[in-house]
Amino acid sequence: MWFCYAITPLIMMNIDLNVDCGESYGIWNFADDAEILRHVTSANVACGGHAGDADVMRKTVILAKQCNVSVGAHPGYPDLQGFGRRVLPMKPDEIYSFVLAQIGALYAIAKGEGVELRHVKAHGALYLIAAKDAAIANAIAKAVSAFSRELIFIGLSNSQLIAAGENYGLRVAHEVSADRLYEIDGILRSREHSDAVIHDNTQSLKQVLNVLKHGYVDAVDKTKLKLKADTISLHSDTLGAAARAAYLKRGLSATGIHLKPL
Amino acid sequence: MWFCYAITPLIMMNIDLNVDCGESYGIWNFADDAEILRHVTSANVACGGHAGDADVMRKTVILAKQCNVSVGAHPGYPDLQGFGRRVLPMKPDEIYSFVLAQIGALYAIAKGEGVELRHVKAHGALYLIAAKDAAIANAIAKAVSAFSRELIFIGLSNSQLIAAGENYGLRVAHEVSADRLYEIDGILRSREHSDAVIHDNTQSLKQVLNVLKHGYVDAVDKTKLKLKADTISLHSDTLGAAARAAYLKRGLSATGIHLKPL
Amino acid sequence: MWFCYAITPLIMMNIDLNVDCGESYGIWNFADDAEILRHVTSANVACGGHAGDADVMRKTVILAKQCNVSVGAHPGYPDLQGFGRRVLPMKPDEIYSFVLAQIGALYAIAKGEGVELRHVKAHGALYLIAAKDAAIANAIAKAVSAFSRELIFIGLSNSQLIAAGENYGLRVAHEVSADRLYEIDGILRSREHSDAVIHDNTQSLKQVLNVLKHGYVDAVDKTKLKLKADTISLHSDTLGAAARAAYLKRGLSATGIHLKPL
Amino acid sequence: MWFCYAITPLIMMNIDLNVDCGESYGIWNFADDAEILRHVTSANVACGGHAGDADVMRKTVILAKQCNVSVGAHPGYPDLQGFGRRVLPMKPDEIYSFVLAQIGALYAIAKGEGVELRHVKAHGALYLIAAKDAAIANAIAKAVSAFSRELIFIGLSNSQLIAAGENYGLRVAHEVSADRLYEIDGILRSREHSDAVIHDNTQSLKQVLNVLKHGYVDAVDKTKLKLKADTISLHSDTLGAAARAAYLKRGLSATGIHLKPL
Repeated sequence: MWFCYAITPLIMMNIDLNVDCGESYGIWNFADDAEILRHVTSANVACGGHAGDADVMRKTVILAKQCNVSVGAHPGYPDLQGFGRRVLPMKPDEIYSFVLAQIGALYAIAKGEGVELRHVKAHGALYLIAAKDAAIANAIAKAVSAFSRELIFIGLSNSQLIAAGENYGLRVAHEVSADRLYEIDGILRSREHSDAVIHDNTQSLKQVLNVLKHGYVDAVDKTKLKLKADTISLHSDTLGAAARAAYLKRGLSATGIHLKPL
Repeated sequence: MWFCYAITPLIMMNIDLNVDCGESYGIWNFADDAEILRHVTSANVACGGHAGDADVMRKTVILAKQCNVSVGAHPGYPDLQGFGRRVLPMKPDEIYSFVLAQIGALYAIAKGEGVELRHVKAHGALYLIAAKDAAIANAIAKAVSAFSRELIFIGLSNSQLIAAGENYGLRVAHEVSADRLYEIDGILRSREHSDAVIHDNTQSLKQVLNVLKHGYVDAVDKTKLKLKADTISLHSDTLGAAARAAYLKRGLSATGIHLKPL
Repeated sequence: MWFCYAITPLIMMNIDLNVDCGESYGIWNFADDAEILRHVTSANVACGGHAGDADVMRKTVILAKQCNVSVGAHPGYPDLQGFGRRVLPMKPDEIYSFVLAQIGALYAIAKGEGVELRHVKAHGALYLIAAKDAAIANAIAKAVSAFSRELIFIGLSNSQLIAAGENYGLRVAHEVSADRLYEIDGILRSREHSDAVIHDNTQSLKQVLNVLKHGYVDAVDKTKLKLKADTISLHSDTLGAAARAAYLKRGLSATGIHLKPL
Repeated sequence: MWFCYAITPLIMMNIDLNVDCGESYGIWNFADDAEILRHVTSANVACGGHAGDADVMRKTVILAKQCNVSVGAHPGYPDLQGFGRRVLPMKPDEIYSFVLAQIGALYAIAKGEGVELRHVKAHGALYLIAAKDAAIANAIAKAVSAFSRELIFIGLSNSQLIAAGENYGLRVAHEVSADRLYEIDGILRSREHSDAVIHDNTQSLKQVLNVLKHGYVDAVDKTKLKLKADTISLHSDTLGAAARAAYLKRGLSATGIHLKPL
């Protein structure tokens, strides 16, 4: 007599979960960093361009250190009033300089707290335009590379950012969003559409599991986008972001995927 | 028979001549950096606090490199409209963070051009208040020390800045001004007085020679202030600053004192 | 036979309740203006100096109009990062210009919405220092008067602000705070003290009733400060500010005092 | 016997000559306003958006008053670092608010000096994009109209700015440049081209005379552009701007055309 077992091989897998933070300014608070940083593995800290000031930077680095989270720089267009969410027509050379200076500012603050920068991820409009525009993507990657070849360069999966990072000899990390819809060209759906943000935890987890297990994400028209994921991103200002992070962590863990920094 | 010779020993001596630069912003030019940097040995480059932006910083570092001048950071109060010339009532912790972030910003830009930071000198109101206020001086020195123990810390000769630098184990450089009068307490005479700035080249050279050869400076009331000088400062915005620098160089050279970076 | 009646004369009294608002900036929200403006009679709208931008100003004016609240200008030190809560060492002439420009900016935005400015109240550090410093108080009053003699000038009760307003021929409004303790010199207790803010609604109402009914406020040491009150102020960022406003309204109404704009 | 007279009819004609000014910021000077304002009839004063601060505004208004020059507002994108020379992707509603607030700020400063605003002219990138983009042009004209129907609205001749001004019932002034080449579509040639600016006084005068006498301007390809001119503009930062203004004044006067404010 034979006993037949259907064996599901338990493949241990790790994935990074990153979140933007330190996006307060002066007296103005942006998100509940203290809460969300407890649930993620990498923190993209604003550097005074689109948000953050030296004081906010320092408090955020201290918080990230307490939460045992990897710290990276989150440079954006120098545009506080627009929160870096609008494209400034800057030349690649200028983008290079402003990104480089922002990385340096955070590097110094982090060094003061005994924390090393691990990665760089561009913010908002800079991230989005660079995903499509090779010249801008290369300006950012050049700045990162000029600062340190040890920094991991996070970019939208399969985008010009990834190509630029590789072009400059950086270790790249393909990023897939856990809270944003994708257009069929692989770009994040603009916030101008009401359905740009995924508000449902189940849908969010499904998007993440799909890309991690099967290597694709459903675009807004249900097209399957083939994407690579080295890190998953979550927006700290999405309602219930901390609970979302905790939900994803549990959901991933249940399928054998564990959160681990890049 | 005896031959008596009066021998004037030719003592070779070196001194650093530093100047603030990179104090433009956007389209607005401040001083003729390209001209004055040809005549000095150290450049204190504004870091985006009181002046300078990432683009200006980069162009200034490139210029300093071409002029073979030592590059240092010139952090100031974060106050563009006031050009860092008014005291902001910031707490020492905030001053620490803002100075540190500014050093880091310039460090990154300089690194991108293959240039190392050699020193740090605070700007304007921050420099002047720190010369008298130990808590502020220590906040600045702490920021420099947190960034790198290799940085030379320039401060007003014999002031709280020097004490703070030593307190944090930094190599300090006593600074004497070539274009400002001194009050009897060893502090620079405020720009609110019409005679604050030395406009005469002869008087300027005399002040420098006095401190280098005899270790004193005449205060505004002719009191002899005992001061130490490791570096001489010149303001780039004083009328005829480049000519002044060239004049000092010749005058010093004639007495065996040569310009050399710290 | 005589019938004796103890007659309590019902004296109808009106008082203005003002609140700072429009203190968001770009994406950053400050307080729940939409909620608190439902409960007050005058809105002090930030003018882009310490907070607010043209877009925030416009939305705030629209909101105030919907709530049928008097609109005034709330100029502050031009210091977003410090939220106008630190004293900038500006000369009276500069304060005059910056206050005047801020009033004009809000005036224009309000005019676009068909709303007239009714009053001016300085913000934060500017208000507090002017309460004691006649030169600064006069610079502010001069700016208000230069703009329009029709504007009511709100100042800390019995302070240099009131004297300056009268000096410039303005209609003044003595202000008493409903949520801050007073020092014995009649100045608001600094936020650096943990007991600076009155968190208890009963205590708040008592302070207001005392000044309205009896003409005094208990200072921090229980000294009775003789004060005049034409308007009562409430901070929009105090926890539960809207509930506090509603509580005060009910409490005042119960004693025959009704809220009415200046 | 016949007497023959060649009669040149002397047609008296007036034209306004306007110049941007007040474009300094804090310590940074931009152009020699004191010199150029002696030679023009209208001053477009920066309002703190792309340049200018309240102190600069006031000094500029005082200067314009001394020079007996008409004062107008010169609002621009809120972008000091870019000097308003780059397009910010702002929505028309936001442009409306920011332009309106800037006009109000200058209005207040001018009122303090007993000076009335006479006109509004948008600055830099805002002016150029509005010349082609009706939505932006209308946002600007709406702001001007919301402030006062008495203000004259200066716009690039025959452009969307003029249409927008008429749309909002404003008195418009067609502007022709004395120092910039024209593209064949009637738009100013971009500063990115080396021949964008007319450096030769003769050529500048010829362009002005052509439009005033014959109603056309030669475009860059020698096409004759039919344009209307109510005011001639000059850039204060063009090398020799004051001398240029004096040259134009003499040249125009020689042909019977006299400078007179709008």
